[in-house]
Amino acid sequence: MSSNLIVQKYGGTSVGTLDQIRNVAKRVKKSRDAGKDVLVVVSAMAGETDKLLEMANKLSDLPERREIDLLLSSGERISSALLSIALHGMGCPAVALTGRQMGLVTDDTHTRARIKAINAGRATDILKTNHVVVCAGFQGVNDLGDVTTLGRGGSDTSAVALAVALKADVCEIYTDVRGVYTADPRMVPNARKLNMVSFEEMLEMASLGAKVLQIRCVEFANNFNMPIVVRSTFDETDQGTRIGQENPDMEQPVVSGVMYDKDQSKITVKGVPDQPGIAANIFNALAEAAISVDMIIQNVSAEGHTDISFTLHTTNLKEAMSIMEKKGKEVKAESVSADSNISKISVVGAGMRSHSGVAARIFSTLSRESINIMMISTSEIRVSCIIDKQSTEQAVRALHGEFKLDEEPKRVSQPATDASPAT
Amino acid sequence: MSSNLIVQKYGGTSVGTLDQIRNVAKRVKKSRDAGKDVLVVVSAMAGETDKLLEMANKLSDLPERREIDLLLSSGERISSALLSIALHGMGCPAVALTGRQMGLVTDDTHTRARIKAINAGRATDILKTNHVVVCAGFQGVNDLGDVTTLGRGGSDTSAVALAVALKADVCEIYTDVRGVYTADPRMVPNARKLNMVSFEEMLEMASLGAKVLQIRCVEFANNFNMPIVVRSTFDETDQGTRIGQENPDMEQPVVSGVMYDKDQSKITVKGVPDQPGIAANIFNALAEAAISVDMIIQNVSAEGHTDISFTLHTTNLKEAMSIMEKKGKEVKAESVSADSNISKISVVGAGMRSHSGVAARIFSTLSRESINIMMISTSEIRVSCIIDKQSTEQAVRALHGEFKLDEEPKRVSQPATDASPAT
Repeated sequence: MSSNLIVQKYGGTSVGTLDQIRNVAKRVKKSRDAGKDVLVVVSAMAGETDKLLEMANKLSDLPERREIDLLLSSGERISSALLSIALHGMGCPAVALTGRQMGLVTDDTHTRARIKAINAGRATDILKTNHVVVCAGFQGVNDLGDVTTLGRGGSDTSAVALAVALKADVCEIYTDVRGVYTADPRMVPNARKLNMVSFEEMLEMASLGAKVLQIRCVEFANNFNMPIVVRSTFDETDQGTRIGQENPDMEQPVVSGVMYDKDQSKITVKGVPDQPGIAANIFNALAEAAISVDMIIQNVSAEGHTDISFTLHTTNLKEAMSIMEKKGKEVKAESVSADSNISKISVVGAGMRSHSGVAARIFSTLSRESINIMMISTSEIRVSCIIDKQSTEQAVRALHGEFKLDEEPKRVSQPATDASPAT
Repeated sequence: MSSNLIVQKYGGTSVGTLDQIRNVAKRVKKSRDAGKDVLVVVSAMAGETDKLLEMANKLSDLPERREIDLLLSSGERISSALLSIALHGMGCPAVALTGRQMGLVTDDTHTRARIKAINAGRATDILKTNHVVVCAGFQGVNDLGDVTTLGRGGSDTSAVALAVALKADVCEIYTDVRGVYTADPRMVPNARKLNMVSFEEMLEMASLGAKVLQIRCVEFANNFNMPIVVRSTFDETDQGTRIGQENPDMEQPVVSGVMYDKDQSKITVKGVPDQPGIAANIFNALAEAAISVDMIIQNVSAEGHTDISFTLHTTNLKEAMSIMEKKGKEVKAESVSADSNISKISVVGAGMRSHSGVAARIFSTLSRESINIMMISTSEIRVSCIIDKQSTEQAVRALHGEFKLDEEPKRVSQPATDASPAT
């Protein structure tokens, strides 16, 4: 089933200057000249959103979220109008649409609204007249008619949602990297770009610190089975990374990538009385402050007391510590301490489901490198370890080598060079 | 009949920086603290519109007007959101509204749309909740839901239209000068700020080159009898200039101001056969090219031939000359020549209606200064003369002195210091 429509999303670094906008226009025109219907979603020009936000923060300590949305949405309106003008300038008819005009209806949660519906009638009509549709990303409109925005990275979500609504074949996300890598190429020089990643793997990767795609956008794509291709705006030859459903015809590589996150901190509450309800008491207080806790360890009880450690994102550390110091006194804990000198390394792979022993190989590898594991958590397709921050690079490189991620995996029913397996 | 509502419009130079936006917020808050309902209309931050337009012109030789409107309207959305945020930051509740949200519906003429209707229900509702309404000027929305703009100076028109729709007492236009002057203060050092100008006088002045208000905004105010006060954003003590209906109780000064326009040119077609239809033939050709002709003189016929001279704005000279050179050959004229070394000086005053002899005084004054008058045109409340450009300043100063415009006029039923006569 092919709809002949492709959705292409270009990020802020792809439309940061007039030359870059011209370059994007050329790529869009090329797709249209090849006979495709094209709907483009653009972010604000690089730096624009931050500039607007900075002005707002200078004018008020706590700017109204509704007004922030009106303010920030201007950035994408400007870039969409400019791209449409550039397309016209090249003889490629185009129409720019705002969030409201593309029918992107959201709830009322300003600055991080959720999409409720897409009424894409106007976009459909315009595509029928052989015009390119250029949509302002990141923005929608609530039932009251006020502008809302979808939060950071929201343009990716706009693009996937429009691709779903218009039944596109694929949603292409153009960015300043060639795709999804087996590890951060700045840390692991022989990191390899992946041709194919499953939705589930990408969800794990996005939540583990891979910045190439926002987790909400991947969730959306997974829910509606819309394949995403992440590829470079600047390198036309590279086919990028395709993110889609697991292909049952194809043997999965056991491990797809190694991720790391240095922005992790650990809080330890020592000498807590080992009584029912104490842990609930502690973690409820954090939940009420909307602080997400990642891993939790509770030691085996000794003499009626126990220690509880948990990790969280470092941005929440200060607030969490002030809560925990209060709670610590309340539950008569011996001490409350924080440690930001940690990082989380994670190994992700859909093939873990059918291959045992991956965790053991990870622990052996780290042991061989004399890296101590402080905490462990696992999912069906992921193993994460907390280690000391200084060992991050060493651990990532060792694991990347152990699982031979620099080598193309052997696959059964597809040639190894095929970047876009059938779905 | 008082509605307790005032509409205040702030131009681009009044909201050009964050400090200026804070200053405007303070003035708005002061009006609200004094018990007024306040609806504010803002222009884009100074320079923003030109910056956006420049980008568009770099991307396309002839940018689509629809996309230009989407692009340019962002400027006012940004400044309205920022002003609303600044007001919140000062503890003054406010809601920013876009052209669509304020219900400003226009025709389809992108980049110079005309207002069709204002459905100001939402603004009315917000004012009832004791919030300041901050409207993005210059923009509306057509029946299709596309953004339109009202052309240069359109924010003034937005403000007057909203004042009419919401039955405001007055529409205050804040700008970087103190009001309307008897002459350009840069040319005539003792030029006096006028406390009161009639709609008709202001219409003449706006069309004669006074840049303080766009002619469309004055037409609108005149049609709906909405008084305008032009005043300085930076000087709070000055009451500005009130523009309203002529006050029958009050003796009008004979002359209110002396204007000049140096951007005038004259085209002369010599030796035209004096036959019926020749003038029509010439001026139809100009009308078809949408070129406005100002003054026309046709000499008395001699030997079956005549000369025709007319003036026009210098921006249209090149196009008009290429048309006239073609026409000249067609009608077998002797020659076609252009002269840009002219300017138009005008004397405006509602009191001319009841005072004869103003024109004679103008001609005598210019004669006394040895300034030659090339062409003359008059209306009920205006006399304009074409003179050579080098004499512009001399003529303006001489006429300003002749009519004693530096002195407060003597008025019958109102004290001379009252800046806002009852209407």
